[in-house]
Amino acid sequence: MFITSNAHKFGEIREIMNASGIDIIWKKMSYEEIQEDTTEIISLDSARKLSVMIPEPFFLEDTGLYIDGLGGFPGPYSSYVFRTLGNEGILKLLAGIPGKASFITVVTYFTGKDFLQFKGELKGSISNNPVGHEGFGYDPIFIPDGYTQTLGELSVTDKNRISHRSRAVAKFVEFLKNTENYGK
Amino acid sequence: MFITSNAHKFGEIREIMNASGIDIIWKKMSYEEIQEDTTEIISLDSARKLSVMIPEPFFLEDTGLYIDGLGGFPGPYSSYVFRTLGNEGILKLLAGIPGKASFITVVTYFTGKDFLQFKGELKGSISNNPVGHEGFGYDPIFIPDGYTQTLGELSVTDKNRISHRSRAVAKFVEFLKNTENYGK
Repeated sequence: MFITSNAHKFGEIREIMNASGIDIIWKKMSYEEIQEDTTEIISLDSARKLSVMIPEPFFLEDTGLYIDGLGGFPGPYSSYVFRTLGNEGILKLLAGIPGKASFITVVTYFTGKDFLQFKGELKGSISNNPVGHEGFGYDPIFIPDGYTQTLGELSVTDKNRISHRSRAVAKFVEFLKNTENYGK
Repeated sequence: MFITSNAHKFGEIREIMNASGIDIIWKKMSYEEIQEDTTEIISLDSARKLSVMIPEPFFLEDTGLYIDGLGGFPGPYSSYVFRTLGNEGILKLLAGIPGKASFITVVTYFTGKDFLQFKGELKGSISNNPVGHEGFGYDPIFIPDGYTQTLGELSVTDKNRISHRSRAVAKFVEFLKNTENYGK
């Protein structure tokens, strides 16, 4: 059971997990997130609180864009900053600053008893302009290392081959495969 | 009892309340804040959680800078944004955008039974450069309407005469004066 209010996230993660033979169900709801400086702490706190209401196994996914030259901004507040400043705001902030950045995804899994976290990172840089209409959020301004295109120019399938989200989910799938819960 | 980890806030608020004959004690601690779009919701949530541990009356204070041209950014994330982007980042974001803005303070008071909120607002605009070393945070880039100086150029006493914080606290003091708890 994957808890998110974001249809894009659900679509990407379902595609990645289905490719490994794992089907997921979507619990569409938003949940409380605290203000903290790392995605790991925020997501673990959310999962703990949700586990009081939801005793069955579930997982959450949180992704942040961390820009080196901006002290990690927007980091854990990536979705708020996207809603208020957008990609345009990020580009203004970076004028003249080297745009190295990382996308970091943390999957937090509640086994019904314990909490486990799986992290995926994609290093890259911020482009000078938004390019492409694939993906969502900051994808059009993020160029993965070794690429000349932004994530916004890659198809979902191509993005899933390299993305922070797919790396975190791959670790999660690996864990599930090694437990007796696999395939259930 | 005023709960905050911020010595600047405590100093300003003590000065304002002392002037009305009310003495406060400082409970120096940080507390959980959720991610939400308004200071009122965040502060009320924090107070509810604190009230489980602290049964006596206490109050919290939260202040955000809301910039019109940036969709209210940095709003409830003002302290995180100040730590990462600073005043320089705000000035970059505003290049070419009219800099109208408001400082909003919300005081949340737990009476030992109920939760009450008192709001103070100071309208103004963002300066082209940081000026002055008084106050803290965004004070050096905020020019109150009707002034030519930034809050960073005003003494604490002058700032307290007009500030969002003092307006919220004045309403709070007014309430205390009208209850039997006044002066205790």
